[in-house]
Amino acid sequence: MNTRAYNFNAGPAALPLEVLQTAAAEMTDYAGTGMSVMELSHRSASYEAIHNEVQQRFRALYQLPATYRVLLLQGGASTQFAMVPLNMVQPHQQASYIVNGSWGIKAHAEAALLGEAVVCASSKEGGYRSIPALDVATLPPNTAYVHLTTNETIEGVQCHTFPTVPYPLVADMSSDILSRPVDLTRFALVYAGAQKNLGPSGVTVVIAHEDVVERSPATVPTMLRYDTHAKHNSLYNTPPTYSIYMMNLVLRWVEQRGGLEGIAQANEQKAQLLYEVIDESAGFYVGHAEKSARSRMNVTFRLADRTKESVFLEQAQQRGFIGLTGHRSVGGCRASTYNAVPYEACAALATFMRDFLRHS
Amino acid sequence: MNTRAYNFNAGPAALPLEVLQTAAAEMTDYAGTGMSVMELSHRSASYEAIHNEVQQRFRALYQLPATYRVLLLQGGASTQFAMVPLNMVQPHQQASYIVNGSWGIKAHAEAALLGEAVVCASSKEGGYRSIPALDVATLPPNTAYVHLTTNETIEGVQCHTFPTVPYPLVADMSSDILSRPVDLTRFALVYAGAQKNLGPSGVTVVIAHEDVVERSPATVPTMLRYDTHAKHNSLYNTPPTYSIYMMNLVLRWVEQRGGLEGIAQANEQKAQLLYEVIDESAGFYVGHAEKSARSRMNVTFRLADRTKESVFLEQAQQRGFIGLTGHRSVGGCRASTYNAVPYEACAALATFMRDFLRHS
Repeated sequence: MNTRAYNFNAGPAALPLEVLQTAAAEMTDYAGTGMSVMELSHRSASYEAIHNEVQQRFRALYQLPATYRVLLLQGGASTQFAMVPLNMVQPHQQASYIVNGSWGIKAHAEAALLGEAVVCASSKEGGYRSIPALDVATLPPNTAYVHLTTNETIEGVQCHTFPTVPYPLVADMSSDILSRPVDLTRFALVYAGAQKNLGPSGVTVVIAHEDVVERSPATVPTMLRYDTHAKHNSLYNTPPTYSIYMMNLVLRWVEQRGGLEGIAQANEQKAQLLYEVIDESAGFYVGHAEKSARSRMNVTFRLADRTKESVFLEQAQQRGFIGLTGHRSVGGCRASTYNAVPYEACAALATFMRDFLRHS
Repeated sequence: MNTRAYNFNAGPAALPLEVLQTAAAEMTDYAGTGMSVMELSHRSASYEAIHNEVQQRFRALYQLPATYRVLLLQGGASTQFAMVPLNMVQPHQQASYIVNGSWGIKAHAEAALLGEAVVCASSKEGGYRSIPALDVATLPPNTAYVHLTTNETIEGVQCHTFPTVPYPLVADMSSDILSRPVDLTRFALVYAGAQKNLGPSGVTVVIAHEDVVERSPATVPTMLRYDTHAKHNSLYNTPPTYSIYMMNLVLRWVEQRGGLEGIAQANEQKAQLLYEVIDESAGFYVGHAEKSARSRMNVTFRLADRTKESVFLEQAQQRGFIGLTGHRSVGGCRASTYNAVPYEACAALATFMRDFLRHS
């Protein structure tokens, strides 16, 4: 088979075909070095150029001021769930979590394991279908930071605005980073695992104000300290060099597609194709999220007649649609339409959904 | 340029050309999936087969009993420096470190930051040229474990035997794992960053007795707990899937080269080519390590006439030998001859070293 799959995986997810083709072409001889990027020393000029380019591209795409740092780490968002409180909660402080869904629950649980952490807003009661309102007046003065998850992959809800709080704002942007313009200077720190919009799994990006990453409590393990990585330009130990190289190719691809504005427009159109089918289905397909909180990254829905869901998913798979089964914790259906998922894949899925409805 | 470099990098290091060619060929369509391995869900059957194959290959190559677990983690050996004491030192216990060189110093420092840790043997006095003798009688009864670094990349010393101790033995094998047969059941836990003999950077292998990885103190961050990863077959969060795929190709390549016996024989011959030049040079080249502790992975040497070192390194680079400069902390020269460095590269370097001597 030489055709590419319609890849709606939730992460690791689709990558741009052009990026993969470049990676294949450069595999045994990167830029005339006679080596793969994987074989370059992380102290070599060839690799350091890649490392610095990635940081520069983030800076340019988000128009970051000089006071912000871009760190390239390992361990995924799950490791950030621990690093954020370990580095940012001082004695007698507590962390506050806005919980929109499953990843917010996990982030809060880890902070509560390691120190004081409360839920300051939650949409649990409605089944995580909306973004909860935060009453800023309820935040105590010893709040270390306010944390939110900007997009919940499992529930398919996304923040389309961000709260203004008198404390450092921290965000898990794993599943919608690089998908739209965002003023990152509103945040003290944002983090993102790469495997949705940035590249392959194995690298985690942290973008933070220098004040947050330049001093960490002395008792925190060296590799979990932001200041370790900030002081060494993320070269304290061997970074995941190939994942960073792939991320550089993906960032360049985003630049070529009109940057964050261009990619946001494309993402809006792709998600709209699927939400339209849901809204026009007269209740045959039922979207999980309230309309105001709908994610442009993860379109989550169920079939009103649950007995038809497995048939729907089976037929979809037979037609070459990959990854449409909802997360094992919630069931149902989910189409993840990250940056690299082509418009044609979403259009094909919309057509399939209409056909399935017509023949049911 | 279409020729491959003579790559003597200390890590990330050379990979087998056949492995890179397979990776390039499969980049946009892995096994008929229509996706790159990078695009596969880590919960998919296609990826899980790779994940399990890696573990099975380690089991087979090292003839591991069922009581041993193979974990696939992130964060490099530097993260293991923290995970080992955090998981293995109980209250009122202390960890003991045998220090052979720079990585042993770092491992001990991290354990001392996080709890009680002593140096029970060290070759510091001799400038880390040998493997220090351990007097087992000096180990206190509250010893949690004894830690050693089986190969020191910076000094070029390697353990050719391992001590017998009445406590759990833990080893950092980052730079000589998979290079020779070793009875891993002598160890409670061994760990290795991948970027020398196993594959690209970004994945860390932990091989341990199940008793060590099945219970961790409740206060340890979730991602630093061995039991988190042991319980979830290293799929608690998204693993570095592409690095693991590359490791699988490398493990298969080792199998095809006669397994650990075959690879050990090849490594012995490659290192011998270089040590012979040093020994026959009548003091022109001076090896760093004592003969009994010479590493078969990192051949470290200086030129007796230090003023000639920069000329030597410059000429070597012009002839296409990459990575021969000694680590910035010690200077001199170093040729890393890991598994994937071909015999011909070592032979070419030996010839160059003889030529340089003749013309000096």
